[in-house]
Amino acid sequence: MESVRALVLERQHELSLRNIDLPMKVGPDDVKIRIHTVGVCGSDVHYYTHGRIGPFVVNEPMVLGHEASGTVVQIGEKVTTLKVGDRVCMEPGIPNPKSKASRLGLYNVDPAVTFWATPPVHGVLTPYVVHPADFTFRLPDNVSFAEGAMVEPFAVGMQAAYKARIAPGDTAVVIGAGPIGTMVAIAALAGGCARAIVADLAQPKLDIAGRYQGVIPINAGTKNLAAEVAALTDGWGADVVFECSGSPRVWATIFDLLRPGGAIVAVGLPVAPVPVDIATCTTKEARIESVFRYANQYDRAIALMASGRVDLKPLISDTFNFEDSIAAFDRAVEARPDDVKLQILVDENSHTA
Amino acid sequence: MESVRALVLERQHELSLRNIDLPMKVGPDDVKIRIHTVGVCGSDVHYYTHGRIGPFVVNEPMVLGHEASGTVVQIGEKVTTLKVGDRVCMEPGIPNPKSKASRLGLYNVDPAVTFWATPPVHGVLTPYVVHPADFTFRLPDNVSFAEGAMVEPFAVGMQAAYKARIAPGDTAVVIGAGPIGTMVAIAALAGGCARAIVADLAQPKLDIAGRYQGVIPINAGTKNLAAEVAALTDGWGADVVFECSGSPRVWATIFDLLRPGGAIVAVGLPVAPVPVDIATCTTKEARIESVFRYANQYDRAIALMASGRVDLKPLISDTFNFEDSIAAFDRAVEARPDDVKLQILVDENSHTA
Amino acid sequence: MESVRALVLERQHELSLRNIDLPMKVGPDDVKIRIHTVGVCGSDVHYYTHGRIGPFVVNEPMVLGHEASGTVVQIGEKVTTLKVGDRVCMEPGIPNPKSKASRLGLYNVDPAVTFWATPPVHGVLTPYVVHPADFTFRLPDNVSFAEGAMVEPFAVGMQAAYKARIAPGDTAVVIGAGPIGTMVAIAALAGGCARAIVADLAQPKLDIAGRYQGVIPINAGTKNLAAEVAALTDGWGADVVFECSGSPRVWATIFDLLRPGGAIVAVGLPVAPVPVDIATCTTKEARIESVFRYANQYDRAIALMASGRVDLKPLISDTFNFEDSIAAFDRAVEARPDDVKLQILVDENSHTA
Amino acid sequence: MESVRALVLERQHELSLRNIDLPMKVGPDDVKIRIHTVGVCGSDVHYYTHGRIGPFVVNEPMVLGHEASGTVVQIGEKVTTLKVGDRVCMEPGIPNPKSKASRLGLYNVDPAVTFWATPPVHGVLTPYVVHPADFTFRLPDNVSFAEGAMVEPFAVGMQAAYKARIAPGDTAVVIGAGPIGTMVAIAALAGGCARAIVADLAQPKLDIAGRYQGVIPINAGTKNLAAEVAALTDGWGADVVFECSGSPRVWATIFDLLRPGGAIVAVGLPVAPVPVDIATCTTKEARIESVFRYANQYDRAIALMASGRVDLKPLISDTFNFEDSIAAFDRAVEARPDDVKLQILVDENSHTA
Repeated sequence: MESVRALVLERQHELSLRNIDLPMKVGPDDVKIRIHTVGVCGSDVHYYTHGRIGPFVVNEPMVLGHEASGTVVQIGEKVTTLKVGDRVCMEPGIPNPKSKASRLGLYNVDPAVTFWATPPVHGVLTPYVVHPADFTFRLPDNVSFAEGAMVEPFAVGMQAAYKARIAPGDTAVVIGAGPIGTMVAIAALAGGCARAIVADLAQPKLDIAGRYQGVIPINAGTKNLAAEVAALTDGWGADVVFECSGSPRVWATIFDLLRPGGAIVAVGLPVAPVPVDIATCTTKEARIESVFRYANQYDRAIALMASGRVDLKPLISDTFNFEDSIAAFDRAVEARPDDVKLQILVDENSHTA
Repeated sequence: MESVRALVLERQHELSLRNIDLPMKVGPDDVKIRIHTVGVCGSDVHYYTHGRIGPFVVNEPMVLGHEASGTVVQIGEKVTTLKVGDRVCMEPGIPNPKSKASRLGLYNVDPAVTFWATPPVHGVLTPYVVHPADFTFRLPDNVSFAEGAMVEPFAVGMQAAYKARIAPGDTAVVIGAGPIGTMVAIAALAGGCARAIVADLAQPKLDIAGRYQGVIPINAGTKNLAAEVAALTDGWGADVVFECSGSPRVWATIFDLLRPGGAIVAVGLPVAPVPVDIATCTTKEARIESVFRYANQYDRAIALMASGRVDLKPLISDTFNFEDSIAAFDRAVEARPDDVKLQILVDENSHTA
Repeated sequence: MESVRALVLERQHELSLRNIDLPMKVGPDDVKIRIHTVGVCGSDVHYYTHGRIGPFVVNEPMVLGHEASGTVVQIGEKVTTLKVGDRVCMEPGIPNPKSKASRLGLYNVDPAVTFWATPPVHGVLTPYVVHPADFTFRLPDNVSFAEGAMVEPFAVGMQAAYKARIAPGDTAVVIGAGPIGTMVAIAALAGGCARAIVADLAQPKLDIAGRYQGVIPINAGTKNLAAEVAALTDGWGADVVFECSGSPRVWATIFDLLRPGGAIVAVGLPVAPVPVDIATCTTKEARIESVFRYANQYDRAIALMASGRVDLKPLISDTFNFEDSIAAFDRAVEARPDDVKLQILVDENSHTA
Repeated sequence: MESVRALVLERQHELSLRNIDLPMKVGPDDVKIRIHTVGVCGSDVHYYTHGRIGPFVVNEPMVLGHEASGTVVQIGEKVTTLKVGDRVCMEPGIPNPKSKASRLGLYNVDPAVTFWATPPVHGVLTPYVVHPADFTFRLPDNVSFAEGAMVEPFAVGMQAAYKARIAPGDTAVVIGAGPIGTMVAIAALAGGCARAIVADLAQPKLDIAGRYQGVIPINAGTKNLAAEVAALTDGWGADVVFECSGSPRVWATIFDLLRPGGAIVAVGLPVAPVPVDIATCTTKEARIESVFRYANQYDRAIALMASGRVDLKPLISDTFNFEDSIAAFDRAVEARPDDVKLQILVDENSHTA
């Protein structure tokens, strides 16, 4: 263990930037990374404001942050895929590679996964981290550290797009234009959709999403979403509906948006069970998919960013210095309608380490 | 139109066996069939007891019956796939073959489908019917008329098994051992499952299902289903859960039965929206499929029966003569726990027609 | 039948622009279309130069052309989805909607399909055509007639992308940068690929394909394709390889390009059986898909063009007037390396008809 | 290393039953197993008769055998899923669980896999073996050691059935009724097929396969297979064709057996590239799958055997004592037409160890 500076959530409502003991031993399959940029995620903020997410409770001080990029500064003796100086981003969940779920290729639902900044596991708002090499991904030269720190939230969108089983040219509806909804819309378009009808009540969010080619923003406060979808699809309905709002009300009429044989992808998490009309679902023989983080999406996400087909830079609303981390979180708590992603620059010299 | 004898549902609670005018014109792509056997379906009984199913209301006298077999007695001029004397069973839903849904292979969810004994369309508890040849299927010699009349309900089980995307050797849970649940269990096993854990509160139903190799009956009144499934799967959960009870209570804990990455197939229709815990669903990244009747299942169902891999004869609880049709329906209303399927012999000489 | 002017292939090597009798009766489900633009397809040219394609032999004079757009000038009495004045493009293959293949959603492999400009069926290089409404697709305002006539060849690319079952962010290799290979690459990218490594020996073709974002052109005459693919994928291989050259030599080493568990999509048609190394295929557990025209791709192709995500205009190399149709074919026979698609403007006033 | 008795292939054509040094150290995730029964596989025999299989050459003495069952006699300190005394069978291929292929759930195509009795890795025709616990599977009480040693070859059939993506009620053709073809037919039926048309030239093999319900044996020496398949499918063709003969000649006409949109599964390995007619393949838009051993099939295979839905005992033709191992191999070399599987009883007291 080494004493290192970190953004520590002491308990609900209380953040400190202080030293804390963290393990820094580099195992044979590990790499040590100097952190460059860390994004502020809704879950980080939720631990700050609520002290818990579902069954995960902050009982002891915990370092926040799990959307990170940086530079490799040391490699374990068996590591062959990375070298010192590589610019990288890191997948924050580590499964047991020998578990049954992992063997099936479903490592994200392995019950043994440990995940950064999920109690009691520390996150990476701190200058260094040790991580398994096989969950550390090299960034191409044309993908910046800031973009590298966007791979994590974009991977959620990629997983949603993957689970949807998009056929080329599909029409998607995305309900909710927050950071995840916007990521999902971008991933759905990159993943084969011809268009993504994005619905929200907040016009500033829609304005940001609407900058992407293929997005059709609909203000659900002023327009009837079902009528708009019907008009845009000759009355047939959308091939896929991504529910990213977590609003229970949305579920009451969600099947009206869908074509016969279409799919709902549940991304947003309502806090309580929501009423679902199985009979109406059945009339369209709808399929409902759910998304738990992501598996095998990092290299795909990076490939889309490297080829220029996905540009996430417009979603970075502001960047804070590490010493201003608490201010970054307080800005995130404000939830300004035109803030998509806030990032913290932990060490701008990371890449020269 | 010809005046023919038929079992007519005059209105809720009132059945008559009387003459009614029915169309008997054989179009170029049609065949005329002398009906041999017709099964009594839960939906027929529900129209009798409630006068409606959801939006479908019996406003005028309607002939009941849609699970039928018989013998071809006349063929249209363009029919080449059938000939007079062929023993057949009939798929009761006729889509618009040029609709968008039909073109996608999803003809069952074509909004234009007309379906026997669904208001205002007459059923086939009557000696003759005219039907499109391409929805009329020849029965192999070793499949009886009684079995032929079981193809319709079994096709629902086949559709459920198809939508589940069973991998060979899967473990299924089937909740509800009524006629549909039992058909689903049989189809799931024939469709690749190693075993089907069938749960119900009624022991006589479980006893019938339990006769089938691969069925593990669980009385959910005396045993904890989730604990049993966990024990049978080393704590992993079932690959597929077929919900066939329509009970809202089942949905409250249904994900406990499922393995990570598994599938729920909703077959039973709760009368109102049911609370679904999206967050728990997500933890297992579960998939939910729904089933609306069936598409392209008749020939597959018949093939399984002809090869001996599926034997539905044990599910035929009793057979009534056509003249006793009303008694058959009153027996069905009793809902005896050991009655699975009641059939009506419309014309035992059909095959010598 | 009406006598109308048309580009007629009299026999191998002999084209005339002359009057011919064509049926012009508008059935209840049909529309009559005034043709605006028709693309010249490799198959049209092949009938001209060889008089046959496989079993299809030109035994009688046949009108050429099957890539067409135009304007509806008359509708059948039962048509509700189109109206006079609609700008449209047409799917040239008409299946039997009641066939077994059609019922499965596989209407393209229905043996009963009739297809424009495939002996003995006439094509549409003529001012008017009568066509089923359900195979006639409205063009959005921002899709020109010239683009509308590109939907047919692009649909082949869409079908290939669909059959590949692309996962978002896949890496594709496309072998052959002719019109079809280029269409496939564009469809693969639109359909979810992060990048398409396009290989050919002709640099002008690669230059055209290389203008599309995500295309990585490789001149297989000067570079080792397998080595390039390995370098671009960290030695892992491509997720999908689209074989669009029809060259038997390509098959000898095609599995070297593929990752374990990847897919080959056979689009190009070698004239004779090609040696395939099943043992090597097996080592990677590769999947091979094949593509026969397309099914259910027109609306998807149009949606991608309308949203701006697919721009096919750069592929239109030159446009000829109807009276110069023979010159257009002779230019096509030249097979200039920088010609992708030649089009014939049958009636520039079609849209004001 | 310990000196233990084993069946050693010294070099091509030369077997000894002698002592050899083998590693017996039990790591933390390992179990030690006392071997009970080992099946003789065609690959074991091929190393004996040819000294190599493709690139795998027997350069040093190697213990044969990889189809094994036994009893756990020791467990590593971290093993929780097995205990001493458990009756088990073992999956002979061990991948790198952290490889890219493993993470995708495709561990069978991980290039790093080591596999018993594949040079230079020793097999298990010896009284004890140390093996990873997660590739060791407990046998239910009603599955014998003899059946446990059949899981390995049956898993190949399961993988083939899985890759076929069988829809419930499919019709399969299996070409070749050797041990693998028969296993494939049984797995295809258990995996959802209504019937498996099994073709071979050797009547004794067909007689054995024909004992299974759903198998339709066809002697391809006396009957025209394509005509038989057409007759059995009303001219439509089979949904899946499993090629298990490895004969190049079969490929020349294989697409004639297939329905439009059907699948070929290549299981047999021709020694050289075979001519495949891509054009004919395309006409049916056929899919070709290949099979490399298996992944995630052991528990499924065992579940099918435990439920009684799969009975492999009729395929065990004869059993030899360990001391007669060489005789067992010489009998296998004879290739008697009615021999399916020969087994060697290494230690009949294994289960009382």
